[in-house]
Amino acid sequence: MSPEEFRRHGHAAIDWIADYWASLDDLPVRAQVAPGDVRRRLPASAPEQAEPFDALLADLDRVVVPGLTHWQHPRFFAYFPANSSPAAILGDLLSSGIGAQGMIWATSPAVTEVEQVVLDWFAEALGLPDGFRSDSAGGGVIQDTASTATFTALLSALHRASGGVARVDGVGSEQWRVYGSTQAHSSLVKAAMMAGLGARAVRTVAVDPTTQAIDVAALRGAVVEDVESGLRPVMVHLAAGSTSTGAMDDVAAVAEAVREWDVWLHVDAAWAGVAAVCPEHRDFLAGVESADSFVTNPHKWLLTTFDCSTFWVRDRAALTGALSILPEYLRNAATESGEVVDYRDWHPQLGRRFRAIKLWAVLRTYGLEGLRAHIRSGIALAEHVAALVASDDRFEMVTEPSLSLVVFRLRAGDEQTLAAMEAVNASGEAYLSHTTVEGRAAIRLAVGSWRTTEADVDRTWRALQEAAAAEA
Amino acid sequence: MSPEEFRRHGHAAIDWIADYWASLDDLPVRAQVAPGDVRRRLPASAPEQAEPFDALLADLDRVVVPGLTHWQHPRFFAYFPANSSPAAILGDLLSSGIGAQGMIWATSPAVTEVEQVVLDWFAEALGLPDGFRSDSAGGGVIQDTASTATFTALLSALHRASGGVARVDGVGSEQWRVYGSTQAHSSLVKAAMMAGLGARAVRTVAVDPTTQAIDVAALRGAVVEDVESGLRPVMVHLAAGSTSTGAMDDVAAVAEAVREWDVWLHVDAAWAGVAAVCPEHRDFLAGVESADSFVTNPHKWLLTTFDCSTFWVRDRAALTGALSILPEYLRNAATESGEVVDYRDWHPQLGRRFRAIKLWAVLRTYGLEGLRAHIRSGIALAEHVAALVASDDRFEMVTEPSLSLVVFRLRAGDEQTLAAMEAVNASGEAYLSHTTVEGRAAIRLAVGSWRTTEADVDRTWRALQEAAAAEA
Repeated sequence: MSPEEFRRHGHAAIDWIADYWASLDDLPVRAQVAPGDVRRRLPASAPEQAEPFDALLADLDRVVVPGLTHWQHPRFFAYFPANSSPAAILGDLLSSGIGAQGMIWATSPAVTEVEQVVLDWFAEALGLPDGFRSDSAGGGVIQDTASTATFTALLSALHRASGGVARVDGVGSEQWRVYGSTQAHSSLVKAAMMAGLGARAVRTVAVDPTTQAIDVAALRGAVVEDVESGLRPVMVHLAAGSTSTGAMDDVAAVAEAVREWDVWLHVDAAWAGVAAVCPEHRDFLAGVESADSFVTNPHKWLLTTFDCSTFWVRDRAALTGALSILPEYLRNAATESGEVVDYRDWHPQLGRRFRAIKLWAVLRTYGLEGLRAHIRSGIALAEHVAALVASDDRFEMVTEPSLSLVVFRLRAGDEQTLAAMEAVNASGEAYLSHTTVEGRAAIRLAVGSWRTTEADVDRTWRALQEAAAAEA
Repeated sequence: MSPEEFRRHGHAAIDWIADYWASLDDLPVRAQVAPGDVRRRLPASAPEQAEPFDALLADLDRVVVPGLTHWQHPRFFAYFPANSSPAAILGDLLSSGIGAQGMIWATSPAVTEVEQVVLDWFAEALGLPDGFRSDSAGGGVIQDTASTATFTALLSALHRASGGVARVDGVGSEQWRVYGSTQAHSSLVKAAMMAGLGARAVRTVAVDPTTQAIDVAALRGAVVEDVESGLRPVMVHLAAGSTSTGAMDDVAAVAEAVREWDVWLHVDAAWAGVAAVCPEHRDFLAGVESADSFVTNPHKWLLTTFDCSTFWVRDRAALTGALSILPEYLRNAATESGEVVDYRDWHPQLGRRFRAIKLWAVLRTYGLEGLRAHIRSGIALAEHVAALVASDDRFEMVTEPSLSLVVFRLRAGDEQTLAAMEAVNASGEAYLSHTTVEGRAAIRLAVGSWRTTEADVDRTWRALQEAAAAEA
């Protein structure tokens, strides 16, 4: 592909995206295919000869689009949003064009330094403590996902708790314990499995039945009991916005409750954390200055194309202690001077792309005021949904709305709740996901796309009402 | 940013990339900045108000480009190439625009099925055994990096060797052993550290001093010794193209040597594996049908924008056994039917973008014949370099050229070798990296960019000759 062809096809690709977005409102949100449908429309082997790039664009329309669930659709309310905004997309495109590798500072200094600056900017914008800034003993880094952040937090915790022994001798037969509530993200168990502790190392702590937040007294009781039994508490995982209902564990209270043990506190605010760009929506992070690590995902609600999970630690030495390696071919004067950070030692991977550009693009193109407006709009729409739920006797709220997440159900029962949701999803009109709360089925409606308007919410609500009527 | 603004700025971003590429030949390959230079040119805080997107493009020129080492430069010969080709960039751009999440089949079926098809295509193109295909008990998946592939291979190996105990109870006090040569990639030790085994679990096996390939008899001896001592061999890591010199471990011989123990064989062909698109460059993979897992990175030599590390296993149940989790909100009929694959259980992360589009775009836009021509061109240029080395008595080859990697040194000694390399790197004329082989310093010259011509190689060689003359 010549430079001129790249310009031509590049403009066509940009236009394809703009056209795709313009078509979203008329497309069913959920994919309308059965297993194997997409595969059957593709050839069995790669082509021997080059094909025109236009053929790929045509196959996107013919094969791919019908097989997509449209996460960028204005009526996508399932899971959490995965906003891919114009500014972030173009930022990431520029990263692809530059094609630099930032595994260490020396391999492309701007990759590391822009990331440090942007993470400092973002920490300040969220009101995070100075101890997470790059000019402190801590610092921030972009991870691919919050799962990886939780995993690296656990490795850091093990490094610290073992006095550096784990990286050499492994986790051994020590009975390490990791704590999280029943509502902690599944990546906590996965992290324990991957770190060699096994799922059994995760002690699941009860939640308050109303708030779904971790029961702090129960947590403390569990730690005391474990310590008395000779087990070694190593990390507490706090959900600042659980996946199921957006429940907020009380960071300050937990920090106080486990203060006498040297336990790593990891605050997982994957979805909710970005709301802290609004000073009035920052209360749920009270106590975060006691946390050892914190993660939030701009790639969910904050308009930044996946992947972009911003992760901070207060003691970067624990992180790099757990993960550092130094092969000969990466030895260099800058690293040996100690003046630079080598991000290779901040995550499991070695190679890393210039992910900071997309977050830089988002912060600049929307400005903090623009981002606050986006967050406030999502929260306002969620409050609107909650009012709609309250206005219809067939429905009831399951938990208080949490930021832009609303969890509700049909009073008629679990079966009717799930059937109504499935009817809406199957219609393609909107897309919702489910959960269980205190053993009962519930519908989750997570607002957050920059395309979603009140009309989209109302249209979704009408579809739910029709489905509820059919279930009555 | 409105749709019309997205089109306008999108076209501008495409043009910025094309202009950047056109400027590369005149730019110094290595960044010309000192620690902190980039950071000092950026504001201390994020802007409150929105800025025009053009301001970001201007800062790329003003702040970023001087701080980059240009991995896309035609005279970038350091490490391994990280080719970001036009077709791949546009494929990945389309993925950003679609913005779908493929953590499970149900969240966007096309993300999973296109990936399965493209991995089957690519396995066939590389001549990999049918046991890696998605219609077998195995299958392929795109990982972010080969480091992650090695880590997931190790987790799979532990799952199998422990009979599924490790995921629940952890690695415990069992004395697991992992084997790799002295030339194995550093990610092997990192994987052992992350998996809870510790660096000490990795037994480093000697290599043949000439080929730098693993000494198979020494490997077998090590395994026998360990088993007799009550240790548990769990995985052998084979370098099919080592980072240092491109050394090729003998997969068939190793498979035969450790056949009597149920040891997981992981073939790490991160850089070299893609050369197997050429039937005449496939010999080094002889025996790969005995491997349990195999990885190669299209994001290195094969024109596919980072990240794209293609990983196959023969027994996907071992992989998903090690990594599966199933929270309530991801339960769905398709998963329960068993008819689909949920890639969430194939890697550490939960979220995943539509990475298959970029590899699909590369396979189609260049065609297998185009990709073979690209590989052959890199190998021919490396042979040209080797001839130049042979033609100048001041230089000598350190190892035989391996595909497109040439390793050589100045006969004058280590200091002169490193000084000559540094002189070339500092001049900006070209960029090379170093290694040590049998205790002596050597220069690595890895060809592989689609922009590199014979003239670029010759110009680099002249710079090296001048530097050698200055060292004489």
